[in-house]
Amino acid sequence: MSVTPPHRSVRVDLGDRSYDILIGPGLIARAGAEIAARRPQVRCAVITDTNVASAHLGALTASLEKAGIDAEPLVLEPGEKTKCFDELIRVCDHTLGARLERGDVVLALGGGVIGDLAGFAAGIVRRGMRFIQVPTSLLAQVDSSVGGKTGINVSHGKNLIGVFHQPDLVLADTDVLDSLPLREFRAGYAEMAKYGLIDRPDFFAWLEANWREVFSGGEARIHAIAKSCQAKADVVAADERESGARALLNLGHTFGHALEAATGYDGKRLVHGEGVAIGMVLAHQFSARMNLASPDDADRVERHLKEVGLPTRMSDIEGGLPGTDILMTHIAQDKKVQRGALTFILTHGVGRSFIADDVPQDEVFRFLEDKRAS
Amino acid sequence: MSVTPPHRSVRVDLGDRSYDILIGPGLIARAGAEIAARRPQVRCAVITDTNVASAHLGALTASLEKAGIDAEPLVLEPGEKTKCFDELIRVCDHTLGARLERGDVVLALGGGVIGDLAGFAAGIVRRGMRFIQVPTSLLAQVDSSVGGKTGINVSHGKNLIGVFHQPDLVLADTDVLDSLPLREFRAGYAEMAKYGLIDRPDFFAWLEANWREVFSGGEARIHAIAKSCQAKADVVAADERESGARALLNLGHTFGHALEAATGYDGKRLVHGEGVAIGMVLAHQFSARMNLASPDDADRVERHLKEVGLPTRMSDIEGGLPGTDILMTHIAQDKKVQRGALTFILTHGVGRSFIADDVPQDEVFRFLEDKRAS
Repeated sequence: MSVTPPHRSVRVDLGDRSYDILIGPGLIARAGAEIAARRPQVRCAVITDTNVASAHLGALTASLEKAGIDAEPLVLEPGEKTKCFDELIRVCDHTLGARLERGDVVLALGGGVIGDLAGFAAGIVRRGMRFIQVPTSLLAQVDSSVGGKTGINVSHGKNLIGVFHQPDLVLADTDVLDSLPLREFRAGYAEMAKYGLIDRPDFFAWLEANWREVFSGGEARIHAIAKSCQAKADVVAADERESGARALLNLGHTFGHALEAATGYDGKRLVHGEGVAIGMVLAHQFSARMNLASPDDADRVERHLKEVGLPTRMSDIEGGLPGTDILMTHIAQDKKVQRGALTFILTHGVGRSFIADDVPQDEVFRFLEDKRAS
Repeated sequence: MSVTPPHRSVRVDLGDRSYDILIGPGLIARAGAEIAARRPQVRCAVITDTNVASAHLGALTASLEKAGIDAEPLVLEPGEKTKCFDELIRVCDHTLGARLERGDVVLALGGGVIGDLAGFAAGIVRRGMRFIQVPTSLLAQVDSSVGGKTGINVSHGKNLIGVFHQPDLVLADTDVLDSLPLREFRAGYAEMAKYGLIDRPDFFAWLEANWREVFSGGEARIHAIAKSCQAKADVVAADERESGARALLNLGHTFGHALEAATGYDGKRLVHGEGVAIGMVLAHQFSARMNLASPDDADRVERHLKEVGLPTRMSDIEGGLPGTDILMTHIAQDKKVQRGALTFILTHGVGRSFIADDVPQDEVFRFLEDKRAS
C-alpha cells in the first residue's frame, strides 16, 4: 500500500518476519483500511487500557468495523502492574474465547505495557498469532514497536518472561502524541536521542538543532520518529535475538534500570526514559573517566538532554537514592549481565558506542560514589 | 561427539536451530558427559515428575554433577493436569530462582507432559533459554522430542498456549523403555507406525515384519526409534512452523483427538496413542469410502495395529461414546480447523497420505454413524 506524504514507511527487514511501520497523522482512523488491504477478512482481539480506550478505542473499532474487520476489545487497567501473569492469562483467554484462529490478529492499542503484554499473548496463543501494534506513546512508537521483544514482569525482575514475536504491521499515529503529557513525550525523546548517540552522530546533531520542532509536531516529528524506527530496525535486522550488536540498544539502560529499581519503579519519581537519559549521561561520563572518550562529548550529551527538560544527574531524582552498594546490586541483577561479568555499553564519543564486556565492578562503584553527589 | 554403535544420532536440520537426537542405551548415565562436551560449565534446571524422579532422577543428577554441571531439580505431579499455567509459572519461578542465565539450560526428564511444559518455560524465561530433553516414554522419544512444539492446556482446549522452541539436544535412553507398562509402549508404537503410513511404506512393511523385536528391545528398537525421529525431522525441517506439509503429522489425530475429548481425556479409557491408532484406521477407512484409497489398505493398517495389541475401532473403547453430533463438535473444535473448513489428513494408500482441506462435514458425520456401530 502506497504511503502519502507526510506519511513515512519504515521496513523492518527480518526475512520472512519482515514488516512495515507506517508513521503519520490519522492512522488510527485509517487502521481498518490498512489492515484489510493486507489481511482481508481477518478478525482482531483489541487489547488496550482504560486511559487509551477513552481517547482512541471508539475511533479504532469504528475504523475496523467499517473495513469489515470484527474487533473484540479487552480493556485492562493502565500501568506497569498490568504486565503480569494474571493479565497475560486474561488476554489469552479473551483471544481464545473470541474464537480467533491462528491467522487472526491480536492488536495492541496503547503504550509499552499494552504492547509488551499483548505481543506476548500473540506469541503464545495457538503457538503464535498475528500481531499488530498501534502504539500511542512516543516511547512505544520509537522503541517497543521495533524488534519484537515482548514480556511481563515477575518477582525476580522486569521483562524476565516473554518471547521474541515480530508484529505483522505497526501503525504509529503521530496525532495521538499531541495528547501526551510533556513529561512522557520527553521520556520518549530520550530514546530517540539514544539512536543518535549509538551510531548516528548526524541524527544527534539534527536533534540538537531541531528538537523544538520535534516537540511541536508536524513533519519534523514524523521525520524524527521515522529516523528512530529505521535506526532500531537496522540494529534489530543485524541481530534479531540479541546475541550481539543488539546490546547497543541498551546504551544508558544498565545505569537507567538500576535507578528505576532504586526508586521502586515509582513513575512519579522516575519514568523509564528519564532513567535512560541519566544513564546515557553516566555512560558517557564513565567512558570519559576510563579515557575512552572526551569529557566534551559527555558535556555535550548532558547539555542537550538538559535543554529539552530531561533529568541528567542522579541528584535530579527527587527523594534520594539508596547507597551505592544497593545500586551495584541492581546493576549486577540487570539481565544484561553475562555469566557474572559486567557488560556495559560504553562509547568513544557521540555516535560511537560499543559493547564493553569486561568492566571492573570497583571502577563502576567508585564512579557512582563520585557522581551521586554531583 | 562420535556415536558408538548401537547408538544412533539423528540430526534435525533447522539452520541455526539444528540439533542432534542421540538414541541408545545408557544415555541417562552419560548425560553429563554429552552435555558438558557441547556446553561446558552450563547450569541446568531439571524438570521432572514424581514417577520419573523415583526411577531416574538420581542417576541423571549424579551424571550431571560428575561432569561439573550444577543441577537444580524441580519435581512435579505426574499427569496431564500438570500442563497448566500454574505449573508453568512454577517452572519459570524455579528457573529464575536458581539464577540461571540465558545461556543456561532447562532440562526435561520425563514424558510428553514434562517435555511440553518445561520446553514452554525454556521458551519464555529470559525470552528463550537452552532446552535439553531426556524423554522417558516411547511417545516422547519418537514424537514430542522432534519439532519444538511446546505448550499447556487451558479451558478452551489442549495445547492452545505454547511456543515453538527447538531443543539444543535430545538424549533418548532406550533402556528406560523397558520399565514402561506395555500399554504405554504400544501407544508410542502407534506414532511410529504413523510415520510409515504418512510417506514411508517401506518402514511400515519393516514394522509389520519386525514389530516383535521392536517390542522386545535391542537393535531393532533403536533402529525403529531412529527411523521415526528421522521421519519426523524431515517433515519438520520442511515446515518448522506448521504452515503446510507438517500437518501430515496429524494423520489419525483429528479423529483421535475427538475420541480423547469424548472420553474426557480419561487415560484409563483411552490414551493418546490409542486414539491415534483408531484415528489412523478411521482415516484409511474414510479415504476408502471416498474412493481415494483401496479398502485393502485400510484392512492392512487395522490388521497390523490390532496384531500389536492396539485398539482399532470406536467400539474398542470401554464405557461407550457420546452421540455422533458431539463427536463432530470435537472434530470442528480441533485446532487444525482452518477458517471453519474441515481439514483432514487422508490417504491414497499406505505411505501415501495427503492434506485434504475441503472435507464435507456431512460425509464425516455419516461415516462416523456407520463406523461407531462396527
